[in-house]
Amino acid sequence: MTRWFNTDQPISLADLAGEVVVLEALQMLCPGCVNHGIPLAQHIDRTFEGAVRVIVLHTVFERHEAMTPVSLEAFLHEYRVRFPMGVDAHEQPGGMPVTMARFQLRGTPSLVMIDRAGRIRHHLFGQTDELAVGAALARLIDEPRPTPA
Amino acid sequence: MTRWFNTDQPISLADLAGEVVVLEALQMLCPGCVNHGIPLAQHIDRTFEGAVRVIVLHTVFERHEAMTPVSLEAFLHEYRVRFPMGVDAHEQPGGMPVTMARFQLRGTPSLVMIDRAGRIRHHLFGQTDELAVGAALARLIDEPRPTPA
Amino acid sequence: MTRWFNTDQPISLADLAGEVVVLEALQMLCPGCVNHGIPLAQHIDRTFEGAVRVIVLHTVFERHEAMTPVSLEAFLHEYRVRFPMGVDAHEQPGGMPVTMARFQLRGTPSLVMIDRAGRIRHHLFGQTDELAVGAALARLIDEPRPTPA
Amino acid sequence: MTRWFNTDQPISLADLAGEVVVLEALQMLCPGCVNHGIPLAQHIDRTFEGAVRVIVLHTVFERHEAMTPVSLEAFLHEYRVRFPMGVDAHEQPGGMPVTMARFQLRGTPSLVMIDRAGRIRHHLFGQTDELAVGAALARLIDEPRPTPA
Repeated sequence: MTRWFNTDQPISLADLAGEVVVLEALQMLCPGCVNHGIPLAQHIDRTFEGAVRVIVLHTVFERHEAMTPVSLEAFLHEYRVRFPMGVDAHEQPGGMPVTMARFQLRGTPSLVMIDRAGRIRHHLFGQTDELAVGAALARLIDEPRPTPA
Repeated sequence: MTRWFNTDQPISLADLAGEVVVLEALQMLCPGCVNHGIPLAQHIDRTFEGAVRVIVLHTVFERHEAMTPVSLEAFLHEYRVRFPMGVDAHEQPGGMPVTMARFQLRGTPSLVMIDRAGRIRHHLFGQTDELAVGAALARLIDEPRPTPA
Repeated sequence: MTRWFNTDQPISLADLAGEVVVLEALQMLCPGCVNHGIPLAQHIDRTFEGAVRVIVLHTVFERHEAMTPVSLEAFLHEYRVRFPMGVDAHEQPGGMPVTMARFQLRGTPSLVMIDRAGRIRHHLFGQTDELAVGAALARLIDEPRPTPA
Repeated sequence: MTRWFNTDQPISLADLAGEVVVLEALQMLCPGCVNHGIPLAQHIDRTFEGAVRVIVLHTVFERHEAMTPVSLEAFLHEYRVRFPMGVDAHEQPGGMPVTMARFQLRGTPSLVMIDRAGRIRHHLFGQTDELAVGAALARLIDEPRPTPA
């Protein structure tokens, strides 16, 4: 990540070990993100309060210069997004964002569910079936915690 | 029940032992049932295909004569409701319908989730949170099957 | 019409001469009527209060016996439909309803706009564009009243 | 205006004399603008094609630095806004935007309807009644063109 918002320090997947994590990948000027992605992330946080950690990944292919830190801050404020948000890095100008490539995301919005052992278990792109998301999260929450090595 | 539709024979909870059951209580002239209850029951059936049995309970306090068998049949056809539907009985004219009273339902639409041992585990009245419904059903599905006595 | 509801006496187009009339053709077990047709008729009545007369035409091709007067009365009550509603007549069993044929309606819900001279000016079938409906009604309202012969 | 997009040259109300104009005041990070304001402006343009000119006014009280020209360009592209858009000017830092003050707008989104003589005839703030908007626009379109002095 090149920068974090809504958190004092960067967050790595290692920091989240033992927790069920929902990673919502979005970008601020994507209509589907604004209409579906953000409301879903907020809804997950309310319904599974305390049992799931929601993290936002801001990831863009192009037009980075349109999304300056001050723009991102205004965006988070206006849409009342209070989750930690990391801004995806680029190894090469014009290339695929690093985390987006690592997680093999198809685009935004994407919902990634990560289990307590840090493994990616589900990838959902675009508009999602809330019954299926609720079922998948309940199952990840109910899995036994991994025992430390 | 006074009558069943979409099934050759009456269904009792005993017949459903070992299965996770969603009972959708509705009545054909209730706007919330038509707008939320029926689509939710159909959505549950698609998402949890084969893992959940959906049964409809048609239950009315009043105006029974407005909902004759021929009206109910037309209603099921027009709204493409293919689940077995039982029509709740009344012990006394003007009284509370029998199953509705037994299940302590507050009104229609109501969603009742019943576990494999036949116990009512969740009651939801009115519009529902699909993430929460999905989580609750996943947990009922994942419970161990009761061993026969 | 074979019967009227929400009015003391039958209404004919002649009775409505001089008024802009919206005729909403529907049937009580049609999902599109319940989801779009009724809310639109109620919305027109609120927005053009006093300047437009809304009349409902209950019209069915089949399953008439499912829609008895007592069913229709319950339907009007549950959906809070307070407009006069006429029940379309059939010349022959299984034939096209009389008014529906006369107005060349394609199905339900249909919205028919009738000018002050009693001429049908617009037919809309299915879900409608409210901007366009609003514009069409304003223009009918603003036309000069026909002078009596 | 401090700047224009989607047009080769600045537009003044004087340039629009003789036309019915819809001015949609919005800002790119306002959820109500994205959910209601932009779709309504696009809907008006489709329904009244050629009979109404749609102009966007981008107006902000604060956080101007979050909405740089490159951000605004990306916003217009992602939301497929093809109308000319002027960026409201500020006389004093932190003050009310000039056009917003002149038109006495209460906030964003606002819909302003201007007649052929350049007079503001309707102000609508927030979510709007499409039947009423359609009626108001039809009436402005149908007014006689002002004769040049």
